[in-house]
Amino acid sequence: MPRPSVRKQLVDAALDRFHALGFNGCGVQEITDAAGVPKGSFYNHFESKQAMLCEVVEHYCATSRLEMLDDKTVPPLKRLRAHFEYLAKRHHRNGYQRGCLLGNLSAEVAGTNRDIREVVDAALERWSDAVTSVLQEAQADGQLRSEIRPKVLGRYLVSSWEGATLRMKALKSRTPLDDFFSVTFDLLLT
Amino acid sequence: MPRPSVRKQLVDAALDRFHALGFNGCGVQEITDAAGVPKGSFYNHFESKQAMLCEVVEHYCATSRLEMLDDKTVPPLKRLRAHFEYLAKRHHRNGYQRGCLLGNLSAEVAGTNRDIREVVDAALERWSDAVTSVLQEAQADGQLRSEIRPKVLGRYLVSSWEGATLRMKALKSRTPLDDFFSVTFDLLLT
Repeated sequence: MPRPSVRKQLVDAALDRFHALGFNGCGVQEITDAAGVPKGSFYNHFESKQAMLCEVVEHYCATSRLEMLDDKTVPPLKRLRAHFEYLAKRHHRNGYQRGCLLGNLSAEVAGTNRDIREVVDAALERWSDAVTSVLQEAQADGQLRSEIRPKVLGRYLVSSWEGATLRMKALKSRTPLDDFFSVTFDLLLT
Repeated sequence: MPRPSVRKQLVDAALDRFHALGFNGCGVQEITDAAGVPKGSFYNHFESKQAMLCEVVEHYCATSRLEMLDDKTVPPLKRLRAHFEYLAKRHHRNGYQRGCLLGNLSAEVAGTNRDIREVVDAALERWSDAVTSVLQEAQADGQLRSEIRPKVLGRYLVSSWEGATLRMKALKSRTPLDDFFSVTFDLLLT
């Protein structure tokens, strides 16, 4: 049986390479090179690049720390801001050059590949639902205008963040994220 | 000298093909086939696919009717909404499958190709500026909260629209656009 650590090395490496080069821009060879394992060992673990995508997206979501949104010890809107600030810091570490893996996959392959689309959709929906829960909590606490519909705004914030990261990636600049923070927290959620 | 109409046929065809297949997903042959002209005639007009992109983006912007945003006979916020509704109708005609050409190019090539990035940036900036002008006008008329900074919100709305169209394209559904209208016109601009 293959060692579990090789599988993890492959998923780590694939996340890094898909994020940097795109799904189509990166082959199995690039993944195994980055993982430092022989190319053949890839197929002990996965049938294809696409077959590993579910685990790669899962790993990406784990590194996005959605659980921050569940931390009831922090007031809801402060928690929401901290979550997006955490994501912004990761973009900073990547020199604002990589965008969001989910947005990149949406643009690159989700329109034409149904299986990939389902993986990306599920991840985006889980994220929107987590944001929605925080907004519901804030509204129950009277911190959010009553005309706001948390489900609509939750989906909207995730899409807008994706739009901001797309622009950030093209400009290689934090400005679109700053615009997101300014409009979201100074205008929308006040 | 080549007939101008062939050049126009090529630009029309390239816009349609780039929009449907992506910039890298479509070759010169596909453009000339769609234009109904011999492949060789392409090179009477353009050195390469990339060399024609500026005109294609120009043509896309013309079909996006930015001039609607300048029509002072319509109240500013009504005009802004009508502009986005016009874009939404175009997405409807395309079955919500094509996204925005500028967003698609941002995701696909603007990160790695500097010349394309400049063409896309210039178009997005012109669009953001036009939205900003409408917001400034609305604010001067007292129809917009005084704490809103039109330049920031103008850039933000364009990025958010791009995020909504990216999601729309993946889902093949109008819902992300509806979320945009609802949040923008019922919450932000009130």
